[in-house]
Amino acid sequence: MKTYCFGIDVGGTTVKCGLFRTEGTLVEKWEIPTRTEDCGKAILPDVAETIQAKMEERGIDKNDVEGVGIGIPGPINENGEAFCAVNLYWGFTPVAKQLSELTGLKAKAGNDANVAALGEAWKGAAEGAKDVVLVTLGTGVGGGIIVNGRIVSGHHGAGGEVGHAAMDHSETEACNCGNKGCLEQVASATGIVRVAQKELAASNDASVLRGREHLSAKNVLDAFKAGDALAVRVMEKVGDELGGALAIFSCVVDPETIVVGGGVSRAGQPLIDCIQKYYRKYAFSQCKDTPIVIAKLGNDAGIYGSARMVLQDE
Amino acid sequence: MKTYCFGIDVGGTTVKCGLFRTEGTLVEKWEIPTRTEDCGKAILPDVAETIQAKMEERGIDKNDVEGVGIGIPGPINENGEAFCAVNLYWGFTPVAKQLSELTGLKAKAGNDANVAALGEAWKGAAEGAKDVVLVTLGTGVGGGIIVNGRIVSGHHGAGGEVGHAAMDHSETEACNCGNKGCLEQVASATGIVRVAQKELAASNDASVLRGREHLSAKNVLDAFKAGDALAVRVMEKVGDELGGALAIFSCVVDPETIVVGGGVSRAGQPLIDCIQKYYRKYAFSQCKDTPIVIAKLGNDAGIYGSARMVLQDE
Repeated sequence: MKTYCFGIDVGGTTVKCGLFRTEGTLVEKWEIPTRTEDCGKAILPDVAETIQAKMEERGIDKNDVEGVGIGIPGPINENGEAFCAVNLYWGFTPVAKQLSELTGLKAKAGNDANVAALGEAWKGAAEGAKDVVLVTLGTGVGGGIIVNGRIVSGHHGAGGEVGHAAMDHSETEACNCGNKGCLEQVASATGIVRVAQKELAASNDASVLRGREHLSAKNVLDAFKAGDALAVRVMEKVGDELGGALAIFSCVVDPETIVVGGGVSRAGQPLIDCIQKYYRKYAFSQCKDTPIVIAKLGNDAGIYGSARMVLQDE
Repeated sequence: MKTYCFGIDVGGTTVKCGLFRTEGTLVEKWEIPTRTEDCGKAILPDVAETIQAKMEERGIDKNDVEGVGIGIPGPINENGEAFCAVNLYWGFTPVAKQLSELTGLKAKAGNDANVAALGEAWKGAAEGAKDVVLVTLGTGVGGGIIVNGRIVSGHHGAGGEVGHAAMDHSETEACNCGNKGCLEQVASATGIVRVAQKELAASNDASVLRGREHLSAKNVLDAFKAGDALAVRVMEKVGDELGGALAIFSCVVDPETIVVGGGVSRAGQPLIDCIQKYYRKYAFSQCKDTPIVIAKLGNDAGIYGSARMVLQDE
């Protein structure tokens, strides 16, 4: 094993970059802008350039670099090819192949949520666990599945697309994906606000959430933690659906650790307790005690996971 | 790779045995009784003895045998250890280790439903697919998950325990596992009869199912295929829940092929059509066209999968 590797996490506005020692120490991290103009054709050359510049700056020889891993916001198959990445304005892009050609280094590409899960399994909240389910509760709900230490990409690159698990067959509003009743419609930041607005409309109960011009998920979570009865009802609904979904996922892959990340997870242990209560209610007996923990690496999960990915054998 | 391997599938009454050529041809299959007396302590010695006898009978040298794989009805961890196998009266049993010591051959052990899934992925309905979800609709609902050509055992050996996915949170009756609303309560042979009995009690609609002393899943499925309106309603409920469950599983592992096996699958294409209609309704866009097919290997799936397991690297 060589001394260094790079972990890259491409987002819609910035590219996060990390230089790692191959045993897992983050040496340095930095960001460059994501240039999405002209169908994002500069993105991978920009990544290659910043890697080259970093090696020169630090006097690192290419022969001492194991490779570069890269996370992309969109489905990626196991050959490291993106079918399309809407936020980068990409069509089909053989990401790993192009990045390898541009850098002269071994390159691997994965979906951003999947590499984040791998990062948490490597050096984060699930450090050392071989089988991990990660759900990321942000604007949407993303996820990543790790089995035997490796990302489950799936046949269409949709492995870990747990935000679109259809949990509520009675839902009448459509999700962004076109289906109805997706987990994301309830358990994302947007979903929490939606559930709260429904709950506010359904009763005249007093609540600190009533009469706000802009209701945010943070408002709901703060009110929940303060014991506001209506906010508690909202989060019990969220916990019921999310805990129920995680219980089903456990019947499929039976993880050692379940990690909850994303902005919503900043609500901390009260949120976890609420999810866990319902998870335990619905989980198969052997999986009832599977720990549910908060992600640790925050925005660095992607660079950690990308770096880890390139260190794994084919 | 050596020329031969053995695939063994231990059931509660018989042990199915297969001699395979390592490229995947079944040379011969036979059965021996499962001796469950004295906490099933004769089971593995009996297996070793029949393997030894078969090698002598055919003049096969031990050095030309790659190893023996064995499927066990109960959770098995990745070290090939059974925590308990109720139908064999076993407590903790290091199956792979014991069988290796008894035979002098490399041995691997897996859960019976999981190895059946591997068998279907190797030489059955999902031949060649690397990522497979198998559901077995029998007295209960079992399952197996194959990711990248390998069994997903899970941290507690509960990978693929999809029959206990809690799908109906409004269910009031308990499943055998103690939870309520498990997929098995609706989609197993027993579950289909239960749903039919509820449907019969809920209306006075005419049906060929009415007034039978012993209602079987086959009765319901035959009536469904004959167009009996009440039986159609029953199977639409089953298809809705099973199709919905499979859609969620696809968001987790995104299989290339979904295989439906077990006695209920003998109902054939009308059953698949009914499941697929709901699967497509609930599945994430990229997974909507994932083929759902009927298992091909029947009772031989276990011996095929066990044989395949022992041919895989660590």
